[in-house]
Amino acid sequence: MQLAMVQERIVPFDGLDPAYLDRGIYFGDGVYEVVRSYNGRIFALEEHLERFANSLAGIGMRGVDIEHIRSRVRRAFDAAEILDAKIYFHITRGSELRNHVADDNLEPNFFMTVTEASDSTEEKTKGISVSTHPDWRWKRCDIKSLNLLPNVLARLDAARKGCAEAILVDDVGLITEGASSSFMAIIGQTLQTAPLTANILPSITRNFIVKAAPDITLRVVEESLTPDRAREADELLIAATTEDIVPVVQFDNETIGGGKPGKYTRLLMQRFREFV
Amino acid sequence: MQLAMVQERIVPFDGLDPAYLDRGIYFGDGVYEVVRSYNGRIFALEEHLERFANSLAGIGMRGVDIEHIRSRVRRAFDAAEILDAKIYFHITRGSELRNHVADDNLEPNFFMTVTEASDSTEEKTKGISVSTHPDWRWKRCDIKSLNLLPNVLARLDAARKGCAEAILVDDVGLITEGASSSFMAIIGQTLQTAPLTANILPSITRNFIVKAAPDITLRVVEESLTPDRAREADELLIAATTEDIVPVVQFDNETIGGGKPGKYTRLLMQRFREFV
Repeated sequence: MQLAMVQERIVPFDGLDPAYLDRGIYFGDGVYEVVRSYNGRIFALEEHLERFANSLAGIGMRGVDIEHIRSRVRRAFDAAEILDAKIYFHITRGSELRNHVADDNLEPNFFMTVTEASDSTEEKTKGISVSTHPDWRWKRCDIKSLNLLPNVLARLDAARKGCAEAILVDDVGLITEGASSSFMAIIGQTLQTAPLTANILPSITRNFIVKAAPDITLRVVEESLTPDRAREADELLIAATTEDIVPVVQFDNETIGGGKPGKYTRLLMQRFREFV
Repeated sequence: MQLAMVQERIVPFDGLDPAYLDRGIYFGDGVYEVVRSYNGRIFALEEHLERFANSLAGIGMRGVDIEHIRSRVRRAFDAAEILDAKIYFHITRGSELRNHVADDNLEPNFFMTVTEASDSTEEKTKGISVSTHPDWRWKRCDIKSLNLLPNVLARLDAARKGCAEAILVDDVGLITEGASSSFMAIIGQTLQTAPLTANILPSITRNFIVKAAPDITLRVVEESLTPDRAREADELLIAATTEDIVPVVQFDNETIGGGKPGKYTRLLMQRFREFV
């Protein structure tokens, strides 16, 4: 008789929560988004929903109604009554007995959490240290999928080195992005960051920065950086939905900009605060 | 108040099954194995446990007792009373609120299923069709991890083309392996397959074949194949734990060996049957 085992406990299939048979856990066969609210207002929800729709299309999941997702996000956010919230949600292709080729009639699984956004005041004020790690990710990083083990391994390596983020370096020695952030350098009056290719997640905060840069007299150059070039930059920063813009003051043990958040990074952070 | 949503239903965190907060679903932060039994005897369990230990080490998970895993496998297999069983198990780094850097004190999650092995008599007798797909996987395919979305996407593409397996081709045009199998060609009296690098899962069935090949006068060459070279081979085959050896009779619509399982492939299948 077919059965399952959860930790030490043998259980019949019938008694199993569908979460145990989720293609999300078997294969990472799903996509996700993280959205932030600031003072009771969700920031850039439409952009996140658009990227979510692109990710769903990227893994060939049709028939998910984005209107439906939007209303779920609104409903859960309203129920949680958290002003500065982190909203995480994913959709997987559904639950079934493990099989690479999914059944056509599976119902997708939706899961969301609404929690307090963590306070990143200290990181934003003092800046963070980062360390480099080989970019081991798959070839479709433009899809925001649940396959994040290489990101986790890079972050665990960074944490062991006392760093808050891992900066990923590809096979030819170019920086792609952070394990869970965009990575940018300010060199003179140029803001440099990698171009959006299949190796890069189209970051929504990156988008904001690229648009805001000219307002503070920065020219944007979309060209990949080497670690050597990054080490010599005037300012470094990472950008992510959860913490928006965070200055980087140490890169692989090398002090950047005298160890303090730089002028342009602070101006960008200020612009962002005004915007949300 | 922080909360979760499962499909349409808002649920408090306290009421949530730990499966919903599994790092396995958030990140694919875990490793797995699939073991077969033949007529009531588990095949090559020690080899699978050794590979499992290597995978755990590969993702930096320490402290998992392999003795413990072995006894769980035995216990569940005995309880299921299935002669020809497929035993799947995984371990993830544990359950917690989503955070790339895992808490050091998490208890790993173990999950196993014991089900009837599917009958592959027809595939083994007639042979299967395969199609090529770009190898989009991460750079540590030697780790048997839960990050399998590229494999799923390749298999879904193959299924749309009426093929039973996808053969993955890397950036420089070399075949690495199948989406869930090893891939081998027989050319004259040579059995050719890709060498074991970080791009390849060290397959246990592959290992058996490499050892058995000389017994049937085949010389083994561990060198990557191009799709062109594969198309011209006398025989093609895939190897996987669930179905051991399966002849390939069509490769990207090209008929191989007159469309019938070849002599050496059949000899290898016979050797394998004797062995188990």
